[in-house]
Amino acid sequence: MSVDTVIAGGTLVTASGTREGALAIDGGEIVGVGDEAALPDADERVDATDRLVMPGVVDPHVHIGDHVSIDSYETATRAAALGGVTTVVDFAWQAYAGAESPWDEPAPLLDGVEEKRANAAEALVDFGLHGGILREDDDLFAELEDVVEAGVTSFKMYTAYDYGLSHGFMERVFERLAEHGAVGLVHSEDDSVCEARTERLRAAGRDEPEAYPESRPDYAEAMAAEDAVRLAREAGAKYYGIHTTARASAEVMERFREDGSRVRAETCVHYATLDDSVYAELGTLPKIAPPIRAPDDVEAMFEYLRRGVLSVVSTDHVAAARADKEDRPWWEGPFGANGVQRSLPVFHDEAVNERSFSYPFLVRVMCANPAETFGMPEKGTLDPGTDADVVVFDPDATHTVTAEENASKADYSIYEGREVAGRVRKTFVRGELVADDGDVVAEPGHGEFLEREIPEWGT
Amino acid sequence: MSVDTVIAGGTLVTASGTREGALAIDGGEIVGVGDEAALPDADERVDATDRLVMPGVVDPHVHIGDHVSIDSYETATRAAALGGVTTVVDFAWQAYAGAESPWDEPAPLLDGVEEKRANAAEALVDFGLHGGILREDDDLFAELEDVVEAGVTSFKMYTAYDYGLSHGFMERVFERLAEHGAVGLVHSEDDSVCEARTERLRAAGRDEPEAYPESRPDYAEAMAAEDAVRLAREAGAKYYGIHTTARASAEVMERFREDGSRVRAETCVHYATLDDSVYAELGTLPKIAPPIRAPDDVEAMFEYLRRGVLSVVSTDHVAAARADKEDRPWWEGPFGANGVQRSLPVFHDEAVNERSFSYPFLVRVMCANPAETFGMPEKGTLDPGTDADVVVFDPDATHTVTAEENASKADYSIYEGREVAGRVRKTFVRGELVADDGDVVAEPGHGEFLEREIPEWGT
Amino acid sequence: MSVDTVIAGGTLVTASGTREGALAIDGGEIVGVGDEAALPDADERVDATDRLVMPGVVDPHVHIGDHVSIDSYETATRAAALGGVTTVVDFAWQAYAGAESPWDEPAPLLDGVEEKRANAAEALVDFGLHGGILREDDDLFAELEDVVEAGVTSFKMYTAYDYGLSHGFMERVFERLAEHGAVGLVHSEDDSVCEARTERLRAAGRDEPEAYPESRPDYAEAMAAEDAVRLAREAGAKYYGIHTTARASAEVMERFREDGSRVRAETCVHYATLDDSVYAELGTLPKIAPPIRAPDDVEAMFEYLRRGVLSVVSTDHVAAARADKEDRPWWEGPFGANGVQRSLPVFHDEAVNERSFSYPFLVRVMCANPAETFGMPEKGTLDPGTDADVVVFDPDATHTVTAEENASKADYSIYEGREVAGRVRKTFVRGELVADDGDVVAEPGHGEFLEREIPEWGT
Amino acid sequence: MSVDTVIAGGTLVTASGTREGALAIDGGEIVGVGDEAALPDADERVDATDRLVMPGVVDPHVHIGDHVSIDSYETATRAAALGGVTTVVDFAWQAYAGAESPWDEPAPLLDGVEEKRANAAEALVDFGLHGGILREDDDLFAELEDVVEAGVTSFKMYTAYDYGLSHGFMERVFERLAEHGAVGLVHSEDDSVCEARTERLRAAGRDEPEAYPESRPDYAEAMAAEDAVRLAREAGAKYYGIHTTARASAEVMERFREDGSRVRAETCVHYATLDDSVYAELGTLPKIAPPIRAPDDVEAMFEYLRRGVLSVVSTDHVAAARADKEDRPWWEGPFGANGVQRSLPVFHDEAVNERSFSYPFLVRVMCANPAETFGMPEKGTLDPGTDADVVVFDPDATHTVTAEENASKADYSIYEGREVAGRVRKTFVRGELVADDGDVVAEPGHGEFLEREIPEWGT
Ligand SMILES: [Zn+2]
Ligand SMILES: [Zn+2]
Ligand SMILES: [Zn+2]
Ligand SMILES: [Zn+2]
Ligand SMILES: [Zn+2]
Ligand SMILES: [Zn+2]
Ligand SMILES: [Zn+2]
Ligand SMILES: [Zn+2]
Repeated sequence: MSVDTVIAGGTLVTASGTREGALAIDGGEIVGVGDEAALPDADERVDATDRLVMPGVVDPHVHIGDHVSIDSYETATRAAALGGVTTVVDFAWQAYAGAESPWDEPAPLLDGVEEKRANAAEALVDFGLHGGILREDDDLFAELEDVVEAGVTSFKMYTAYDYGLSHGFMERVFERLAEHGAVGLVHSEDDSVCEARTERLRAAGRDEPEAYPESRPDYAEAMAAEDAVRLAREAGAKYYGIHTTARASAEVMERFREDGSRVRAETCVHYATLDDSVYAELGTLPKIAPPIRAPDDVEAMFEYLRRGVLSVVSTDHVAAARADKEDRPWWEGPFGANGVQRSLPVFHDEAVNERSFSYPFLVRVMCANPAETFGMPEKGTLDPGTDADVVVFDPDATHTVTAEENASKADYSIYEGREVAGRVRKTFVRGELVADDGDVVAEPGHGEFLEREIPEWGT
Repeated sequence: MSVDTVIAGGTLVTASGTREGALAIDGGEIVGVGDEAALPDADERVDATDRLVMPGVVDPHVHIGDHVSIDSYETATRAAALGGVTTVVDFAWQAYAGAESPWDEPAPLLDGVEEKRANAAEALVDFGLHGGILREDDDLFAELEDVVEAGVTSFKMYTAYDYGLSHGFMERVFERLAEHGAVGLVHSEDDSVCEARTERLRAAGRDEPEAYPESRPDYAEAMAAEDAVRLAREAGAKYYGIHTTARASAEVMERFREDGSRVRAETCVHYATLDDSVYAELGTLPKIAPPIRAPDDVEAMFEYLRRGVLSVVSTDHVAAARADKEDRPWWEGPFGANGVQRSLPVFHDEAVNERSFSYPFLVRVMCANPAETFGMPEKGTLDPGTDADVVVFDPDATHTVTAEENASKADYSIYEGREVAGRVRKTFVRGELVADDGDVVAEPGHGEFLEREIPEWGT
Repeated sequence: MSVDTVIAGGTLVTASGTREGALAIDGGEIVGVGDEAALPDADERVDATDRLVMPGVVDPHVHIGDHVSIDSYETATRAAALGGVTTVVDFAWQAYAGAESPWDEPAPLLDGVEEKRANAAEALVDFGLHGGILREDDDLFAELEDVVEAGVTSFKMYTAYDYGLSHGFMERVFERLAEHGAVGLVHSEDDSVCEARTERLRAAGRDEPEAYPESRPDYAEAMAAEDAVRLAREAGAKYYGIHTTARASAEVMERFREDGSRVRAETCVHYATLDDSVYAELGTLPKIAPPIRAPDDVEAMFEYLRRGVLSVVSTDHVAAARADKEDRPWWEGPFGANGVQRSLPVFHDEAVNERSFSYPFLVRVMCANPAETFGMPEKGTLDPGTDADVVVFDPDATHTVTAEENASKADYSIYEGREVAGRVRKTFVRGELVADDGDVVAEPGHGEFLEREIPEWGT
Repeated sequence: MSVDTVIAGGTLVTASGTREGALAIDGGEIVGVGDEAALPDADERVDATDRLVMPGVVDPHVHIGDHVSIDSYETATRAAALGGVTTVVDFAWQAYAGAESPWDEPAPLLDGVEEKRANAAEALVDFGLHGGILREDDDLFAELEDVVEAGVTSFKMYTAYDYGLSHGFMERVFERLAEHGAVGLVHSEDDSVCEARTERLRAAGRDEPEAYPESRPDYAEAMAAEDAVRLAREAGAKYYGIHTTARASAEVMERFREDGSRVRAETCVHYATLDDSVYAELGTLPKIAPPIRAPDDVEAMFEYLRRGVLSVVSTDHVAAARADKEDRPWWEGPFGANGVQRSLPVFHDEAVNERSFSYPFLVRVMCANPAETFGMPEKGTLDPGTDADVVVFDPDATHTVTAEENASKADYSIYEGREVAGRVRKTFVRGELVADDGDVVAEPGHGEFLEREIPEWGT
């Protein structure tokens, strides 16, 4: 047998260890792992000498397009490819009607799935979709099974914004999710507290960006998280706590976590690598919700990652234009920060280089755990038989982040000027080289939609 | 390239998943994992159709010979081989002088290491050694670095028996272990409580075997465990809680565990698969210390395994003769039960078949975690580059345990008559087939001593 | 000196003990406690032989009149006097405008205080007022200091009903309460969950009274309590958890309680003496919010009272007419149950007779603690210098509760038919006998408004 | 009626409040409390204008004479009287034979009771006795009921020193105490850890007094406390944790405390008012066991007193001569510090003046709680019918502690030079003035033995 590609000479990193070894890739899959001598000849031999060979990053929390992001699928997934991210999970939305809504009228969630899949025609990396529930409408329950069967096995709700759901409806959703084994995600910030504090800060003329975190305090996050996870527990549903930012909310997750078979949680790269001094430095650019917190909260993210209460690190990637962010009071600008191009090098630098976490830890929280948590057994691993989503990573090369290099339409970076050790050299998606040393080398459209399974947690 | 062996046609089970695939083995190592087509030709092709192909079991708590067991290395490791156990960690003892001591005079621990390695010449499977500290003697501290460098990177102490150590000395040991990064293990039962209760039961004529568990209650275990783990924490040493039997002591482990970088713990197969009704059924045969507990404690073992507080399942294998156990009051007979031949099928049956735990869970608690916990990166995994310690397991074949089949010199089994689904078909140690469908097929002496590394926990 | 009254021959019960002794009363105050021989002569000697002499009950959670109760001050306080309750804390409301509002237009809270004081002209027992905040209006903050100075030092908010407040406004209230040292009380049930569940039960035709508790589950109570107490903690305000009904919410209170200097909580007599089988027995009559819970929750009330997490037992007395409660689906009838006439005998019977709690415990949770918690140092004790609010209680007399004996306008009792041992013989309010063996013997108007102090908790 | 004494014009302080009022005392009892006008004429009127009138202090942990203290009953109780302490609970010991024993041969505990009562003939204040169990001898169980009936209803054991008991025997004692409802007290320090650390410090030449606390670390205390309280819980016995010194052991008490019906604990004045800088300042004089701890532990004592986990403040009074303490390495000198003359002014100053605790708090932890905890209903309160043990306290007078004023034979004070606000003006024991403004004014022998009751906790 001869295979398409062999990546050899490097160090393989998996969730359980690091070892010398080579990968044989054929037909888009990893068909062999081992000594190069034991693997077949290949059309293409990739030399990974002095490099780490890792599973591609699986980022389960990415926003592309829609009402929240200016990226197209092409721009966002170019950024992903450059960042070593080979799978993103984006959101398919229910259309809703409302003053701030980009839709004219409500539509089923399945329409959202189809629309998003159509929008994603130019994707460079693979993508899954969470279902985004933006309306309190019983029609959802009628289509839920179809949505799950379409491979959308996790569902996001909000407690805030004009599409926030009530607890009563949320409980009903959790009950249905429990029936299907699907996962519930909740953007959890107490809307009322955040709105009232924003008003008070505005009324007080506190328009300096440093005031922004006070408008969405950690306890508002903890309150909403606690309510949501309790509802999920009562309903018997799986719960995934998204964008945990603070010790206060990590404690909530720990209290409800038990054995991880029902409750899991993520943090995002920026909550683990930036503290709230960023608002003095960068102004409104890092306006995200929940906000970036105090230094003690940054440390808490690593503590709870080590304990396993937090088991995934994502980006919550959202693209906005600098011009929309700046030169206006913080309450007028859009939320979100682009991160998918920088998550691996930045988090690697903080976790591995600064805090001595291991490479297998890195693979667990950025590749294996998100894949396993969201029903993608073919992703996040170097096991033979799985998709050949592979990153060749140079742990020693240093690089300074600049927005100039952004593939995303977002023309700024919250990591601007940060020098990090560790650089993505090559990114393969199902065996095809999509990014090569800072250049995107594949054609748009290589990325495929992932029909995700119902995950089994804690067995 | 042509390799020694390919195991193909089966389902590979690792700590992170189960997938179809084949293994290529050469020179005693796994050199390739993947599609059979992508692997080299082999001198020997093992057909694993309808079989699971797993890492060999790593049993980190096994007693062979010495003052505690009638097995020779050959008999014990024949049992291991038949049971799919490819690595055992036994104990090298400091000789001590005393009324109940088998030694005439004290000797260094290094002597114990050498003696045990000599005794193990007939081993069929690989073995490591914990250092057993039986005397309060400062000479230990002088030789400790040498012992660690000899690959003995974990040390056991007792709180009971005539070689039990005082807390004051134990603290000093933990301080030295902390300097080296070595692991402390403590057989933790409050000796005074156990002795006094035994005396009281004897005085009351309570010689029925059912009385035995009352002589060593769960709180005596929890007390001693709590003292030991607290001392280890104060000293900054790694602590591994051995043979956790009860909810009370699992709670202690959970309280001190934090993020697992300092405190870990095991249970044993029998504590998770038998309850104290066994004393009415089998009399004194299951006399082990700590005793087998109440049904709620059995459930607690699985709860805490799922939570990760308990992360390893071992056997505490000890061989005794039925004649020494029976026909005498329980306080006169020897402690211990042989288990290494039955641990995989019995625990598999209870965990996977009865309680729906996954195969990767099985591999984690019986293979990967013990190997990682005790510094054996070449064991407990199917990763290329590691030792080709492999079990071909038939998950469906049923089998009834009988002592007649014992390879151990122990002529009884606490699982006698238990019908289990799941059977070890083939056991490979470093690529060599050592057991084949119930027969030992390798020559004694194949097993090698493992120089274990200092483990890094929690990174 | 000669005094008005001596109560002699009985056993004095205080928060700290029970002893033989007599009370001397003059000018409405207790002027002496001791051996009868050491006390002055009296115009009236009350013989308390074989009786307990206790402080009058202080019920800090009573609703009289307004939009919630059909009682007048006269009828409610007649019931109180007969029940040994010598102080009630009722509510003064902010008027608000709304579909379900009894007011035509909004009005200041101080108006509510004045109006309630006027309505209370016929009171037989003393009364204080909590301020009830029903609107989100900054005018409140302007008048808050005046309200506190008027002796209204605690404030109630709702999370449910059409006058429920948002978390954002609630936080602002807590901040102001913290400035004044005043106490916040929150009726805490997640409104959305309760409303949605009610709708679902209605839609499913579940109109049997047994379905009622499902409409307002324990976790809805725990969620809202957790949010409220967290907001209070962040604001630095004192928080008093009202009508705790369930283990789930008692656990929340325990978690936030710390040393009791910021967080305290009550349960009500019915949550500790009735379980949800009452809905099958009595239909919609016991429709109260939160509902009466499961038997385990009843036990939890006593557990948490013993631990001190719950430190007060109140009634949440509300009077409704049987006709308004019955013969309609449970969702249409009014909330509430009258209890102030029965709280002492019923709770005494369950706590002291059935569960062996002590009389001092009874005095603590029904007299001393509520008085101390709400800034009434002259109440809830037999200390000389305090108000002569005294109950002569016959611990052995048995009595069967019947609604026929109700002094309240409510013409039913949720304790109907319950035989209890323990009967109020005499009730004195500031030295005047107001109830004598089942008859009210004082004139309406004896009761006075209490200007309560800012309480100091936990010193 | 005319009474012996009236104390009038002052402020009465009880466990529940402070109020103006007077006390009438006759025949050694309080016969009336109230307005002076409502009380009888008296042979003696004590003017307490500007003074606090409090119950006498009940110190449940005092050592007089025996093998541990150089005080006679006269000197110790003169100190007590001067300090406002009207009741002490001392220890009656089992004699045991041993190298360090002051006894020649073993003797029953009842002999110890009789001997101590004889020794106490010159007592000025009342005294109770804990039974001190120093031997593992079944004869104890035979006499236990008699000892309890003699009014010795609590029993102390040691985990350290040459009379330390084994856990096995301790468990048997707890079982018997549970049968009688009696209380177990354990001096809990892990003997082995303390001995080994002492040896190591000695071997290292660490003879400076500052090294002393390292010889008996907080975790040694926590370990032993945890073992003891667990054994008590298993046996169903009441447990009173003595001389809690550290956050680590207070946490243990909290974990086992539950509702206070089985587990209670004290700290001592010095652990709440001194930190370990005292060893640099005073050398070996403050050598006590357990040692005085770090500043954070001092704060922890107040935190846990406020939470109620610690509910009593005692002195552990022991008298030693300065000459025996000084001019020798710390390991050679005697343990203990005298404190009974200074406990009220020193703790008052730290708790009330420095930390704003209330006077009722002071009365609870120093008077009411110890009396209630140890079965002395006639002590620790100003309730009529109880013993007229009264302190007239001047809260404003300042005083500087000097050993020159010691009534104890101990000729030093660990509080030497401390200026405190608050001074004992008069001390009455059962109506008799025993100390008057720094002078003892009663004759030795006024103090009586207290036959204590079996206490009921948590009702
Ligand atoms: Zn979000
Ligand atoms: Zn998001
Ligand atoms: Zn053992
Ligand atoms: Zn063992
Ligand atoms: Zn309410
Ligand atoms: Zn109410
Ligand atoms: Zn002591
Ligand atoms: Zn002592």
